[in-house]
Amino acid sequence: MMNQKTIILKIGGSVITDKNGELEAKTEIINRLAEEIKKANLDNLLIVHGGGSFGHPMAKKYAIKEGLKQEEQKIGFAETHHIMTVLNGLVMDALIWHNVPALSVTPSSCIIAKNGRIHLFEENILRKLLKMGIAPVLYGDTILDDQLGFTVISGDQIASHLANKFGVSRIVMGVDVDGLFDSDPKDTKNPKLYDQLNLEELESIKNNIGTSTSSDVTGGMIGKVNELISAIEQGIPVSIVNANKRNRVYKALIGAKVEGTILKKE
Amino acid sequence: MMNQKTIILKIGGSVITDKNGELEAKTEIINRLAEEIKKANLDNLLIVHGGGSFGHPMAKKYAIKEGLKQEEQKIGFAETHHIMTVLNGLVMDALIWHNVPALSVTPSSCIIAKNGRIHLFEENILRKLLKMGIAPVLYGDTILDDQLGFTVISGDQIASHLANKFGVSRIVMGVDVDGLFDSDPKDTKNPKLYDQLNLEELESIKNNIGTSTSSDVTGGMIGKVNELISAIEQGIPVSIVNANKRNRVYKALIGAKVEGTILKKE
Repeated sequence: MMNQKTIILKIGGSVITDKNGELEAKTEIINRLAEEIKKANLDNLLIVHGGGSFGHPMAKKYAIKEGLKQEEQKIGFAETHHIMTVLNGLVMDALIWHNVPALSVTPSSCIIAKNGRIHLFEENILRKLLKMGIAPVLYGDTILDDQLGFTVISGDQIASHLANKFGVSRIVMGVDVDGLFDSDPKDTKNPKLYDQLNLEELESIKNNIGTSTSSDVTGGMIGKVNELISAIEQGIPVSIVNANKRNRVYKALIGAKVEGTILKKE
Repeated sequence: MMNQKTIILKIGGSVITDKNGELEAKTEIINRLAEEIKKANLDNLLIVHGGGSFGHPMAKKYAIKEGLKQEEQKIGFAETHHIMTVLNGLVMDALIWHNVPALSVTPSSCIIAKNGRIHLFEENILRKLLKMGIAPVLYGDTILDDQLGFTVISGDQIASHLANKFGVSRIVMGVDVDGLFDSDPKDTKNPKLYDQLNLEELESIKNNIGTSTSSDVTGGMIGKVNELISAIEQGIPVSIVNANKRNRVYKALIGAKVEGTILKKE
């Protein structure tokens, strides 16, 4: 079915949006990343991006993650999804402009959640696209939920779910820091970057790792790492690189040596 | 499952885009239609719109409907879908701005075709949305196809498929003419507008009805009527009204008397 060598690239919402600005996309970075994706020239790539300042503040405002409790939330649900499609549209624009055959696959159109976790995922379309060499692009989104009415699922949850389902060869996480540190690099003077961590080491330091200081309804770096544990347990290595720095995502995509943190089973 | 009274509103691509212009959306008309939809205040509405000058010229340029034959078409497939999401984004913008709880459901994310016809449609999400009183919004789109690789399916095909599947109460077709004429109202001096036609009458005059003169890769008015025959056969009435004229769509939505053509089984 699926090409065993499928690679998942997850691009953090904080990389492609300005978390301090209101609905401000970092189009220059989006364009550079599209250029790096084109240069990597992979025909087995699946891309997932986060919501950053597009998705999170609005999801929070309307308490979408907590589910449908009030009539007024329905318009918030509609609006939050809509605003995510605007951000996704900018990403798709850049990819197509750089001649990357990529198709946006709308999470809320093919996923149903149960209590905040992916429950039903119509994946045939993803499999077909990957087989054709067209990169599916998904994103953190508002999703219908069998128990809550609706909820929010993060790009990290989608990436991890698909990694487990498809048995991908590896996951590249493009974030806004150099990797995992022993303390928050935004708060600490001399944080130590971990080159490589196995599951055991990861578990033991998990509560100490540098957490992202910016607000994120789907969890900061700890949330990200927690989502990925099940994939790592399956033997899928995760390489975390700084997507703000030129060519790090590119190098990680082609499997070249690059500054960052690799999370592995053993 | 589905509320028996679900109403489908199909808005023609020629209503919301300028078929002579390049990627020109008629945002004033889109906004007025959103206002009329809000005013109708239906909690059982499913909306489908066409591609007009956004979808058709590009789909034609890359021969998407005919399927995947050349590597270069992949980027055309990606681009055509992307451009349809831009048009859909304008429609969603207007609906949300007018406080209509509506969620875009991306056809290419939940439909697989076979030889140009809808083959697999993950409809659970539509059913859930309708049950919640959130209007699903679909559109003519590029779709993966089990036989062709990919293809184009029209908004009319989607509307007709869902009408049959869901047993809706009626279909409202908002087009750019007053209804069905005995000759093309754009070419003829004194065309006669049919108030009402039953299936028998419709079949007998089908080859004579006023055909849309503008180019449309998914067929003009004859294509539209052909797509709807199976729904009409099931006893679902179709009312065709001029969406360019204020309040006709509104009146048709609430079931009031309005100028136009009603197609009925008997």
